[in-house]
Amino acid sequence: MNIILADEGELNGKKLSLHDRRAEHIVKILKAEIGDTVRVGEINGGLGTGIITHIKKKFPFQVDLEVDLHSLQGALPPIDLILALPRPIMLRRILSQITALGVGTIHLINANRVEKSFWGASILEPEEYRSHLVQGLEQAVDTRLPEVVIHPRFKPFVEDVWPILADDYSRCLVAHPDAPGSLGEVVEDSGRIALAIGPEGGWVPFEVENFVAQGFVGVNIGKRILKVDTAVIALHSRISAVREFRALPGQRDTTAK
Amino acid sequence: MNIILADEGELNGKKLSLHDRRAEHIVKILKAEIGDTVRVGEINGGLGTGIITHIKKKFPFQVDLEVDLHSLQGALPPIDLILALPRPIMLRRILSQITALGVGTIHLINANRVEKSFWGASILEPEEYRSHLVQGLEQAVDTRLPEVVIHPRFKPFVEDVWPILADDYSRCLVAHPDAPGSLGEVVEDSGRIALAIGPEGGWVPFEVENFVAQGFVGVNIGKRILKVDTAVIALHSRISAVREFRALPGQRDTTAK
Repeated sequence: MNIILADEGELNGKKLSLHDRRAEHIVKILKAEIGDTVRVGEINGGLGTGIITHIKKKFPFQVDLEVDLHSLQGALPPIDLILALPRPIMLRRILSQITALGVGTIHLINANRVEKSFWGASILEPEEYRSHLVQGLEQAVDTRLPEVVIHPRFKPFVEDVWPILADDYSRCLVAHPDAPGSLGEVVEDSGRIALAIGPEGGWVPFEVENFVAQGFVGVNIGKRILKVDTAVIALHSRISAVREFRALPGQRDTTAK
Repeated sequence: MNIILADEGELNGKKLSLHDRRAEHIVKILKAEIGDTVRVGEINGGLGTGIITHIKKKFPFQVDLEVDLHSLQGALPPIDLILALPRPIMLRRILSQITALGVGTIHLINANRVEKSFWGASILEPEEYRSHLVQGLEQAVDTRLPEVVIHPRFKPFVEDVWPILADDYSRCLVAHPDAPGSLGEVVEDSGRIALAIGPEGGWVPFEVENFVAQGFVGVNIGKRILKVDTAVIALHSRISAVREFRALPGQRDTTAK
């Protein structure tokens, strides 16, 4: 927890009173005292600091803060994720890790190789997945909560929902091992990117064809087959690295037109 | 399990007889029959195929294969990792994930912010960490087992061990958030790379200074603070992406000399 995050509406003017794991963190991990300053942010709001005005170090813990949110929230991350619903235990970790890396919207969609039982998982309840997103923000010192949208059917998502969203993106990518494209050839300097990552076992050809019909470009990250949780971080990081590298002085445009 | 891996010495000529989780995988997941072909490799040896000559589909499972290892093992991955010993549960995941991504040697070292208790973890026993490395190879369809070297003291590693190894590398990187360098400026087109990643909470300044004194260059990956398991994948992926991007036609050399 690298920042104490207040829920929307939890800040009472400049006063914040904590009684849960955040108070426990300040007492037991930060070992803070009255008058100490900690990093504070408001979910989907600003960032700043909080001065401890009251602290109760025994259970039940309590920490009161005088908060000053002097910085605006960070920019919207330029990458959105379309993810075939993974196994629940893996989805928990992916949600906090991709939030820490920075993501705008996460579309969880169905695919042929998604196990039906995954759709009954409790992690798809907003109060449960939200806690993993918040953990990612607390890790990365960010306040902008990613949006999660759940699409239990593949074709309606790709054929009906996606065309409405597609104009937001300068490049839409679908990851699969047989794709000819390497990221360096298709990632532009700016604009939003949509990245579609399949289930364990990959997209079936029908699904790749549907994405391509909607203007997605296939990309691979080499011959090695990765688990979904590794692939999500690897692809996000590679896209970010190509972007940063292209922004260095002296780089030519190598994007396929 | 995207390849069936035989241990060194387990292959008897071209015959391989399986009785463990690999036999179970062939029976229950691949649902293979006599005459079917599966991908087979030998750890630290070649890759090829195995034709099933005998199969027992009830517990205890058994699968006999006639193996042909017609391909050489893959090249040595160009990245080696120096990792401050992480929490055991995290180390297990990192070992299989970084093996799947491709790594030559993993040096596990001490650091100021490594919890002492981690050094007593069973994951540091060769037979235990090896199983996680093998899982990574099975995932990525690779046979080259990374080397793991354990260094329970920081200074002897950096001051005595490292100078002997340093000549193998074209670039040695130490990741920390305050570093000025971005990867695009310091990763060359070729040669081996050593990448040092600290514990939760980061390297202490003394440790960074020691690495820098040995010729390491500091790199950051932006303002977001990442957990070690996320940072390992993110940095490995970013280095690989920069390498691939630099190899595209028309790229100029932007490496800081």
